[in-house]
Amino acid sequence: LKIDINLNKTVDNSYPVIIGDLPQLVFNKKVAIVTNPTVAGLHLGTLLGKLTATEIYPIIIPDGEEHKHLGTIEYILDRLFEHRFDRSSLLIAFGGGVVGDMTGFTAALYERGIDFIQIPTTLLSAVDASVGGKTGINNRFGKNLIGSFNQPKAVYIDPSFLATLKSRELSAGIAEALKMGVMFDREYFEFLQNADISDTQELLKLISRSVSLKAEVVALDEKEHGVRAVLNYGHTFAHVIENETNYKKYLHGEAVAMGMVMANALAVNLGNMSADEAALVERVLAKFGLPTRYVVKDVDAFYDKFFLDKKTEGAKIKFIVPDGIGGHEIVSGIDENIVKAALAEFATK
Amino acid sequence: LKIDINLNKTVDNSYPVIIGDLPQLVFNKKVAIVTNPTVAGLHLGTLLGKLTATEIYPIIIPDGEEHKHLGTIEYILDRLFEHRFDRSSLLIAFGGGVVGDMTGFTAALYERGIDFIQIPTTLLSAVDASVGGKTGINNRFGKNLIGSFNQPKAVYIDPSFLATLKSRELSAGIAEALKMGVMFDREYFEFLQNADISDTQELLKLISRSVSLKAEVVALDEKEHGVRAVLNYGHTFAHVIENETNYKKYLHGEAVAMGMVMANALAVNLGNMSADEAALVERVLAKFGLPTRYVVKDVDAFYDKFFLDKKTEGAKIKFIVPDGIGGHEIVSGIDENIVKAALAEFATK
Repeated sequence: LKIDINLNKTVDNSYPVIIGDLPQLVFNKKVAIVTNPTVAGLHLGTLLGKLTATEIYPIIIPDGEEHKHLGTIEYILDRLFEHRFDRSSLLIAFGGGVVGDMTGFTAALYERGIDFIQIPTTLLSAVDASVGGKTGINNRFGKNLIGSFNQPKAVYIDPSFLATLKSRELSAGIAEALKMGVMFDREYFEFLQNADISDTQELLKLISRSVSLKAEVVALDEKEHGVRAVLNYGHTFAHVIENETNYKKYLHGEAVAMGMVMANALAVNLGNMSADEAALVERVLAKFGLPTRYVVKDVDAFYDKFFLDKKTEGAKIKFIVPDGIGGHEIVSGIDENIVKAALAEFATK
Repeated sequence: LKIDINLNKTVDNSYPVIIGDLPQLVFNKKVAIVTNPTVAGLHLGTLLGKLTATEIYPIIIPDGEEHKHLGTIEYILDRLFEHRFDRSSLLIAFGGGVVGDMTGFTAALYERGIDFIQIPTTLLSAVDASVGGKTGINNRFGKNLIGSFNQPKAVYIDPSFLATLKSRELSAGIAEALKMGVMFDREYFEFLQNADISDTQELLKLISRSVSLKAEVVALDEKEHGVRAVLNYGHTFAHVIENETNYKKYLHGEAVAMGMVMANALAVNLGNMSADEAALVERVLAKFGLPTRYVVKDVDAFYDKFFLDKKTEGAKIKFIVPDGIGGHEIVSGIDENIVKAALAEFATK
């Protein structure tokens, strides 16, 4: 006897990304603003001035990747229960990637799911974390190992919140934008090559093109069964760099920049791009103040750490490499020696 | 500037429920069997005899609702990380509702979601918890307050695993089956009225009809925005009964049976069913050895506890009452005195 459970799919999880001045937001429900002390100090007043709701509760969580764990999720959940939030209530993620990841994850779990919206305050979260619905936390086994796919109801990207960023934080966001250009769009790469991000119009163009490109990829492959893996360009190497430097020395975008340069070295060896193209990408990364050269102290040890990454399936590692500037290829089951030869180019002599 | 993120919905979360002898199960992947010591002692050998996989890991969690908390979820997650499960691995929930809820929740969180299947070993989980995809845990604020909607890939209901159940546990499952009859299907209620569940054929019919009815409801309303709330018939009262008796005195199905009798008293007062029909439902519940009369010591205190239930929205409580036997009505915003008058019928004189 077999009974088929056919669940209809009428629930739509599409959502808009609104780029520009934050509009007045009016909600006839309870709202919690999850943020960190830095963002609260700089911008909470501005947000509160634009927000109307039945009740508003700021929930301040500590800043930093090292607080992105289950204990902080429980802290947020407890506050929501204390304020008697129900399934119709709303969370607002007001901060960078850490705040966004944890707010989205909490929203997925609270009473089996409540709505959330994102108002990113870093360039990295504006161009990258605000699209895609990946939420999650770290544990002792690694980064983002526990989480869910949970889409926000809307994303508001207001460049005035980005105006207080340090230049190093801005550059970290540009690394992810350049990643999109190298993988998907040569014209966008060339725009970035000459972009002046102190000009608000150019910054808006940078953000909107990056969001559009990522939206197309995620729409094709929400759960990362295929092309979405291309977004990991530079990241396979970056995760090892971050691990070796205890997540302290480099911002995520900085590690990605150095990882892109490593992936390009592999691509050159595979015949996927010319040495000139690789050098051009490196120059543009450097132009925005990003580090490009990570020194590999021990090639074998660096290689072994690929296998700690959750994106490995069985014993095979997928490498994402450019196919020229503006194209991409996913290479699986590549010979160990080819990878190590590319790593050796970054080794201390 | 507004960019719409349109996520396609090609991922299908429909699944089969297979009722009858457990077939040979062959998986070319790592499998973890989440179960409790009682079920492991009685049936793990049988399951292992039918299961082939790359690697098989039993994960034994303590039995009982009081262990359905985040700490146990972390325990299961840690075992999966230690065994280097990846996104292609599989979890099997082998037990009753507690095992099913926690396995499904863990599967939702592990690397943002891995597959799980359910093999229920109690009648309650076979007829109720195996369909619907509600997973979750308790915390100090209440039951099932943290969780997710996560559908299994398949459910296997083998009556031989139910043969070792105590009669009290069987009865608890029948309460949920009777709930489905009273709410949706008079003919099914009449079948149950005369059913002999020691007969395997009648037990199979009981299970399959209950599963089919629940499947229809869940297909209409997976996320409980409408008709799915009808499945809470008896439960609004049962949650208070369980709270007042510290979740120890009664099995969940027993509390539901008493809650159904209370909801029926309310329905009689509202003119939704006759006193004869209410008496008939109570007799059938009693025939299966279920308790039907909970003594309300303090009507006001009992009433106030409705508001601790997460299913309340704002200050309104939804009551689910029969509309005759085989019909249902969701009553919202009902006058406090009408509810208290019904509760008073169960008060100590």
